[in-house]
Amino acid sequence: MRRAAVLLSGGLDSATAAAWALAAGFEVAALSVDYGQRHRSELDAARRVATALGIADHRVVAVDLRAIGGSALTAEIAVPKDRAAIGDDVPITYVPARNTIFLAVLTGLAEVLGARDLVIGANVQDYSGYPDCRPEFLRAFARVAGLGTRAGVEGARFAVHAPLLHLSKAGIVRLGASLGVDYALTLSCYDPPAALVHCGRCDACRLRRAGFVEAGVHDPTTYASPA
Amino acid sequence: MRRAAVLLSGGLDSATAAAWALAAGFEVAALSVDYGQRHRSELDAARRVATALGIADHRVVAVDLRAIGGSALTAEIAVPKDRAAIGDDVPITYVPARNTIFLAVLTGLAEVLGARDLVIGANVQDYSGYPDCRPEFLRAFARVAGLGTRAGVEGARFAVHAPLLHLSKAGIVRLGASLGVDYALTLSCYDPPAALVHCGRCDACRLRRAGFVEAGVHDPTTYASPA
Repeated sequence: MRRAAVLLSGGLDSATAAAWALAAGFEVAALSVDYGQRHRSELDAARRVATALGIADHRVVAVDLRAIGGSALTAEIAVPKDRAAIGDDVPITYVPARNTIFLAVLTGLAEVLGARDLVIGANVQDYSGYPDCRPEFLRAFARVAGLGTRAGVEGARFAVHAPLLHLSKAGIVRLGASLGVDYALTLSCYDPPAALVHCGRCDACRLRRAGFVEAGVHDPTTYASPA
Repeated sequence: MRRAAVLLSGGLDSATAAAWALAAGFEVAALSVDYGQRHRSELDAARRVATALGIADHRVVAVDLRAIGGSALTAEIAVPKDRAAIGDDVPITYVPARNTIFLAVLTGLAEVLGARDLVIGANVQDYSGYPDCRPEFLRAFARVAGLGTRAGVEGARFAVHAPLLHLSKAGIVRLGASLGVDYALTLSCYDPPAALVHCGRCDACRLRRAGFVEAGVHDPTTYASPA
């Protein structure tokens, strides 16, 4: 049974990506990164999702990016609410080099476990804004993972799987629903007012809510603000 | 003045690489990674080196790799002493994907500072054993750094400078001595018996000691064991 190392943030996307990896037959180890995010309830969500999916090997690695700063998710910058539109600019919730850092730590875990398959829930709705969700970035990272590890020296090739890359949020919700993901356990909100409560107003909440509506799938989320 | 982000471990190599970056005219920001290494006096050495070189922006980012394990430098595995030879195998002091992880965090810092130049003290003596010191790895990483950052989206190219890559330890010592590096401030030992004291028996100490001898440069190091 091939092992895969999966990034699990506790959000809707990564929960779906983990379910994809299990359905594809991988033995899954999950990695969550505690990067000093303000919305720490993400990590609780990741633990719930791992348990619900039956992933026994779930590790949390602390990477304190606050010493670097530069993002509304780690620094004392307000998370934008009620934006008129979700545009093409890199949002201020972008954490500098986040996916590079997360995939690097995931590569370390993969190396220890003998896994050659890395799984990340990156998707098209993000890569309009976040540079490190672009397909060419993910391909280039797979090459780095191979070259930078013991396994790579021995000729192994690494793959970065991004099974949600070209899906809309509605497509992700449909896929996850068909795989039995319990989205009530996940947390997307950048600024949750309470555990398992979504603000309903930040970009992540708006994408999430619209995704369920468009997918025609029941939304189990509690939002603090009406649509 | 172009900015460079430099990995500074507190060892002989990274101190020399930082001095190279300063001599090359870069405005230098230094990054040390607290990765749960057992030899934490490395971080004290990094602080001393940064101060001595006049690097005002020195950040320590905590990345707790102990949750991943797999190395004598982070886990409860004995550091080898008095090995008959330093061979071609990947040593057990190899930290899984270490340089991938360090360079990823360095990319985050570079992004925040507007730097496009990453500097690492990787060298040939290491890359016989550590896969993530190989030149093709460093080239591939530069591509990832460009693709995974905001600056890259805007067309900037990143460079990973490894000015020591093809130098022997003696060559590094000669270069650093010519640049005025005070090696008494640096720490190479994997298992230092006291602050600023080198064991003299681990691979890192043996390479260091032999480097000074071969370079014909006075060795200011205190070793606990005779040569």
